[in-house]
Amino acid sequence: MSRAIHLAKRAWYTTSPNPRVGCVIVKDEVIVGEGWHVKAGQGHAEVNAIAQAGDKTQGATAYVTLEPCSHFGRTPPCAQGLINAGVSRVVAAMVDPNPQVSGRGLSMLEQAGIEVASGLLEQEARALNPGFLTLMQHKRPYVRCKLAASLDGKTAMASGESQWITGKAARQDVQRYRAQSCAIISGADSIITDNARMTVRWQELGELKNDYAESEIRQPVRVIIDSKNRLTPDLALFSESSPIIIMTAKVENRHQWPHFVQHIEVALCPQSNQLKLDAVLFALGQQGINDVLIESGRRLAGAFIEQHLVDELILYQAPKLLGDNAQGLVMFTDVEQLKQAKQLKITNISMVGGDIKTVAQLIN
Amino acid sequence: MSRAIHLAKRAWYTTSPNPRVGCVIVKDEVIVGEGWHVKAGQGHAEVNAIAQAGDKTQGATAYVTLEPCSHFGRTPPCAQGLINAGVSRVVAAMVDPNPQVSGRGLSMLEQAGIEVASGLLEQEARALNPGFLTLMQHKRPYVRCKLAASLDGKTAMASGESQWITGKAARQDVQRYRAQSCAIISGADSIITDNARMTVRWQELGELKNDYAESEIRQPVRVIIDSKNRLTPDLALFSESSPIIIMTAKVENRHQWPHFVQHIEVALCPQSNQLKLDAVLFALGQQGINDVLIESGRRLAGAFIEQHLVDELILYQAPKLLGDNAQGLVMFTDVEQLKQAKQLKITNISMVGGDIKTVAQLIN
Repeated sequence: MSRAIHLAKRAWYTTSPNPRVGCVIVKDEVIVGEGWHVKAGQGHAEVNAIAQAGDKTQGATAYVTLEPCSHFGRTPPCAQGLINAGVSRVVAAMVDPNPQVSGRGLSMLEQAGIEVASGLLEQEARALNPGFLTLMQHKRPYVRCKLAASLDGKTAMASGESQWITGKAARQDVQRYRAQSCAIISGADSIITDNARMTVRWQELGELKNDYAESEIRQPVRVIIDSKNRLTPDLALFSESSPIIIMTAKVENRHQWPHFVQHIEVALCPQSNQLKLDAVLFALGQQGINDVLIESGRRLAGAFIEQHLVDELILYQAPKLLGDNAQGLVMFTDVEQLKQAKQLKITNISMVGGDIKTVAQLIN
Repeated sequence: MSRAIHLAKRAWYTTSPNPRVGCVIVKDEVIVGEGWHVKAGQGHAEVNAIAQAGDKTQGATAYVTLEPCSHFGRTPPCAQGLINAGVSRVVAAMVDPNPQVSGRGLSMLEQAGIEVASGLLEQEARALNPGFLTLMQHKRPYVRCKLAASLDGKTAMASGESQWITGKAARQDVQRYRAQSCAIISGADSIITDNARMTVRWQELGELKNDYAESEIRQPVRVIIDSKNRLTPDLALFSESSPIIIMTAKVENRHQWPHFVQHIEVALCPQSNQLKLDAVLFALGQQGINDVLIESGRRLAGAFIEQHLVDELILYQAPKLLGDNAQGLVMFTDVEQLKQAKQLKITNISMVGGDIKTVAQLIN
């Protein structure tokens, strides 16, 4: 199973929105077939492993990181594929988290007389697909929020100057997060101020360039929160043709928008007159977007945090102090006492170039 | 030499203000004597190593982390001790940084016909004594500044509430820094607000309690910046009898101060009406204080940083976000553009309990 998980990771940057899945087929203690799901529309992990094993699948054991599917999607059900291949045992790391599917793949196998088990290295298997799991459980994508600051928690000077607080290596690391995300969320303010394109720039992917040609890089959907319809088609954002979703309170059709731009209307919060961010995420989940990266100013990032909609914080801290003439990291004002602080759990700290990278889970 | 450096570290919490020094005597490739300087007034490393080696020093090689002294202090010169012991070779990791002494110990040995060398593992040896080196070179102590903040760089709520942002393990770590420092610097504001004692609390030293009995812990000098003579003898600070230095613009003898309290007058900066902090450090250096730990509010910490008087930052970051109702990490206002930022070099990051600990050198 450890090998199957390793294989699943090979698709880290390509399977989205499908889950990352790996499969290993073992016969007489020898691996006879391996496979992983590379990208949506192509063969599932089990299909690829069966193909590699050829006629050695008879009586073999299949290890798969996710319960084999039992329904016809773009490909036939994998549970049927395993039955047809004649395996005698299937071990899944976890059952399918989709409550409407969960367990059906395994029971289809069991009914065909195949021995089944699940739960082996489940935690590692779950970590392959936080987005897919969150979407199934909470009907919204897994939300990462990227922030870059100085060591004293400042993101920009009073003037707005912020390029660049962190170093090149940290910015490359952000490009890798972009490349693995279904979508990036930003605000109209940031987009207009920086005239940002919000695309994955292959030449800035560092070592990943060795693994993927420029044409293989999947561009994430660019989601812009634009409650006041401030975006205009002349922005650099629209000079790249990867999909854009503009979230707004009410679409105003003043402009001729390019074909890759979609508008989604979302209700406003009565108190703040800002878009309801839970509704934004729900709408994205309905589009099959299972993980998002927030790259925005401190106001929008703070609003997502304040509304308990961030799962993971990715903070890059540059070895600098900016002092009192600079702007804070996240803007929210609902914490007045220490006991009300937003609590996190640090899951990793590392150096990325000269900057500190902290990954943390939001736990309240 | 590596062993000698290891031995020197055993005195991490006790030698101050003397340097940490270790010595190993080797004869026929066997260690025959080891020693380290435990505390001021007791035997130097070489003396202790010679004593342990007994009659085996004849023709031996002595490895010592710092050039042997050539002058009579509280103990006779170690260079003479090595000559008397009949060693044939002395290897020093570094020469004495005191320009008035530097090289004299080695030349005394050379004149006695002993082979000498220096520079072996010099960097490691220098790291034993940043305070001693800084005092010799810059006539001021090595300055560490400890800060504790949330992950978004906030040190206290708007109300001033700050106990406790960081966890118990981080606070114990601070106690260990206190225990190894010659002096702690704080400001009258913080002392009055927190009614702090600023002593080393043995019961909060964690694992160090296994190495040192409560009576062996050396209390650092407590230095309080009190330009406006706001301290009063009824504060908890004065209920403990370890030395206190009050730095003030002009001593006002309104109070009966305890015998362990000393006042030092320091000039004011004309522009800020605050004490000249370089003069504060110079005065401490003249008292033989070679390293200090700043534990103060963000205003005083910011002033030390703004005036380029901090060598090392020790930052504990709690896994919390406090948002905009909270106070910033350090207060200074001379950075208006990103290129003017105070630059640091991160030397270590680690987890201390649930908090992130960052150690950084200030490099401009």
